[in-house]
Amino acid sequence: MTGAPPPAPGVPAGPSLMPVSTDPPVEYYCDYAWLGAETAAAGVTVHVHGGTIQAVSTGGSRPHGARHLAGLTLPGFANTHSHAFHRALRGRAQRGQGNFWTWREMMYSVAELLTPERYFALARAVYAEMALAGFTVVGEFHYVHHGPGGARYGDPNEMGRALLAAAQEAAVRLVLLDTCYLEAGPGRAVEGAQHRFADRDVDEWAERATQLARVDGAVVGAAIHSVRAVPPAAARLVADWARQRSALLHFHCSEQAAENEEALAAYGATPVELLDGAGAVGPRSVAVHATHLSDADAKTLGESGTGVYMCPTTERDLGDGIGPARRLFALGSPLSLGSDSQAVVDPFEEMRGLEMNERLASRRRGNFNAVQLLETATAAGCRALGERAGGRLGPGAPADLVTISLDGPGLAGITEDFLVEGAVFAAGPGDVTDVVVAGRPVVAGGRHLLVGDVAGALRLAINALTQP
Amino acid sequence: MTGAPPPAPGVPAGPSLMPVSTDPPVEYYCDYAWLGAETAAAGVTVHVHGGTIQAVSTGGSRPHGARHLAGLTLPGFANTHSHAFHRALRGRAQRGQGNFWTWREMMYSVAELLTPERYFALARAVYAEMALAGFTVVGEFHYVHHGPGGARYGDPNEMGRALLAAAQEAAVRLVLLDTCYLEAGPGRAVEGAQHRFADRDVDEWAERATQLARVDGAVVGAAIHSVRAVPPAAARLVADWARQRSALLHFHCSEQAAENEEALAAYGATPVELLDGAGAVGPRSVAVHATHLSDADAKTLGESGTGVYMCPTTERDLGDGIGPARRLFALGSPLSLGSDSQAVVDPFEEMRGLEMNERLASRRRGNFNAVQLLETATAAGCRALGERAGGRLGPGAPADLVTISLDGPGLAGITEDFLVEGAVFAAGPGDVTDVVVAGRPVVAGGRHLLVGDVAGALRLAINALTQP
Repeated sequence: MTGAPPPAPGVPAGPSLMPVSTDPPVEYYCDYAWLGAETAAAGVTVHVHGGTIQAVSTGGSRPHGARHLAGLTLPGFANTHSHAFHRALRGRAQRGQGNFWTWREMMYSVAELLTPERYFALARAVYAEMALAGFTVVGEFHYVHHGPGGARYGDPNEMGRALLAAAQEAAVRLVLLDTCYLEAGPGRAVEGAQHRFADRDVDEWAERATQLARVDGAVVGAAIHSVRAVPPAAARLVADWARQRSALLHFHCSEQAAENEEALAAYGATPVELLDGAGAVGPRSVAVHATHLSDADAKTLGESGTGVYMCPTTERDLGDGIGPARRLFALGSPLSLGSDSQAVVDPFEEMRGLEMNERLASRRRGNFNAVQLLETATAAGCRALGERAGGRLGPGAPADLVTISLDGPGLAGITEDFLVEGAVFAAGPGDVTDVVVAGRPVVAGGRHLLVGDVAGALRLAINALTQP
Repeated sequence: MTGAPPPAPGVPAGPSLMPVSTDPPVEYYCDYAWLGAETAAAGVTVHVHGGTIQAVSTGGSRPHGARHLAGLTLPGFANTHSHAFHRALRGRAQRGQGNFWTWREMMYSVAELLTPERYFALARAVYAEMALAGFTVVGEFHYVHHGPGGARYGDPNEMGRALLAAAQEAAVRLVLLDTCYLEAGPGRAVEGAQHRFADRDVDEWAERATQLARVDGAVVGAAIHSVRAVPPAAARLVADWARQRSALLHFHCSEQAAENEEALAAYGATPVELLDGAGAVGPRSVAVHATHLSDADAKTLGESGTGVYMCPTTERDLGDGIGPARRLFALGSPLSLGSDSQAVVDPFEEMRGLEMNERLASRRRGNFNAVQLLETATAAGCRALGERAGGRLGPGAPADLVTISLDGPGLAGITEDFLVEGAVFAAGPGDVTDVVVAGRPVVAGGRHLLVGDVAGALRLAINALTQP
């Protein structure tokens, strides 16, 4: 550890999950693997050394000593945008009527109950659930920084360190997007749970984020919570912080029409216009949701190469609407996916949801093909998290592998030629049998090798929050 | 068998799955069961005799000799609208661009390859997949009646009898909706695969359907394929046939905007106006999809008590659009759900899809609550298939029970109070452990007790069609 006190009691430090040069060579033999083409390749050996893929050979039989991955092997999925603690709301936030804003009140009530120990336990279980579903890299959009009422922890990054430790125990790589949150809305002081999110000013945020980035093994990017929570001048300073470090910069953006209306009323500009004015758009940046965009907004994001993250399952659940995915993609925005509010944790449903939403909106099929959807969920998601080589089964990539069984009823009868479409349009987390992260087996036979009883861990962690 | 020759070779006759008065008493003890309220009841004993629920008692401990159903037990799901053979298209119809109509060409190419033996094998496997997912009653909208080029089989209902036999082997109750199909479009002769669907005229259809209804154990309703395929005068005769027998009457209706345009051009009326004019709407009728309705159409369906079936997963997949579910429900149309094109077989995704589509369209949450969604997928679906007492855990209902495990990561941490929401918003077919149909165990430990290797059966049946 550098520049920060040791972790809180109950928050252990785990092994690194970055590829490690000393890891010995290992080979994985896949019955089928997706190597980027329209169809899967048969008989694929993935040669791994130091946690990184060294070579991929096809068409051969299983080398002596190679570990066998039956079924179809894909690159690990990237969960580009996660709020781990929202998992405690699953099933509990579906009663009564309301909208995004009433849901937010329920989310705040869970945020109020977090402690570093509770958040560690919950995030460990949630990241393990993600690993079981095939996610190997997670971008945590982390905004619960402080104690109740905004009280600072001894280490102001105690919550962030709890998340880092949780990810290490669950054996997913974490990118912590340290989120700046300053106000309740334009010119309005934070209230209630928001005190836990808020730094006093952007300088305090920058100091804290800088400290967090010095923690051993931490991969830290910047996040502007939204133009609701960060005024334009502060947004500019966050963008500067990220630019000076060549760090990632993510921001929630135009998820709700009311957010646009508020920005227009307060600043006379849309959220994208404000973020563009603050120097926050560009190829290291990711706009999260981007559901309600003007034509000019879409052009600004696309032409600047700003990434756009979507979560069809959350955007359905919260009644956000359908964002202009195909349009943004055509304009130049790389798209990425993930589980956001954890309404479900299912990379397959996210992939097909992206295309299904386009079909509902356009009444045409084939807006994104299966290869584009897989690339979005893997390589593009990794790039949105700063892993330029990740998310593909090829030399130089971290050896993240996800294997789905072809023996379940859902994929039965889908012949070799159509396995890629089958995986995208008909598979689910229950089909995932094996997950390898940076060369090391993390899930085998559908079981998490480190956390063991993931359901039990979720139950304990959520009960501690909901029935404290 | 009455009034019809014996089944073709390779098409066995199975045991009846209707409740049978001679079946001995049996008790099932459920850790939790949904009895219709907002929350699940704990410690529920379901007393079954003759395949029918005699009584339900709550709060007690497990009676001596009662079979234990761990987790949450729900009534069996009703799959109100199925085309079993579309299952062969799963994963194979996702390449390239197109729309509903180009998908239809691919569907026709599979229809061309069906034989009674192949259809029996495929439907048996597909109905078994449905049972594994929790469907206990299936409405098969059956339109592939004849041989290649329209050649009549020795028994003109050989295909229908293959489906009945398949359902019996897979242990789901089948309602065969014998579908009238006469033309390719207003005044246009059938072509290609449509020859296999088409009777020469409505009298030939009526004769065939009348014969099919006489088959021992067959439950037969009428279907008008659509106003595309059945002209108004013939639709009236199909509606008359159904009315005279108090039989069900289902029809595809306004799934695509082009269907409305064609009807308006040919007849000066919308599909609903045509079907209303033919006497086809009313409480024994179900409009399938009803995606693109005028205000007057919606009123006609709602005020006449006509049921409306929706399949959110198919309507997404085919780019149909989002139908006015909440509006139709408010106007008086009972809604029902099912797997239609078998893009997926997942009653949970259909339930939440209905609500999620409303959220996407209205940007509000809580349009249907979990209880309404469960009722839609169970009791309302049963009523749409003529089973007035079905789809509930109460005295007089067929003893159809579906148990989901609470031990998987998806539902972990959802406490007792929220199990109903958890089931609807976060469960999947992989969570189903036990299924009881008319009192008899059909699925246990996630395994089909009669078909055994469902995935293997699907593989064989689909390979026979796609690689013949």
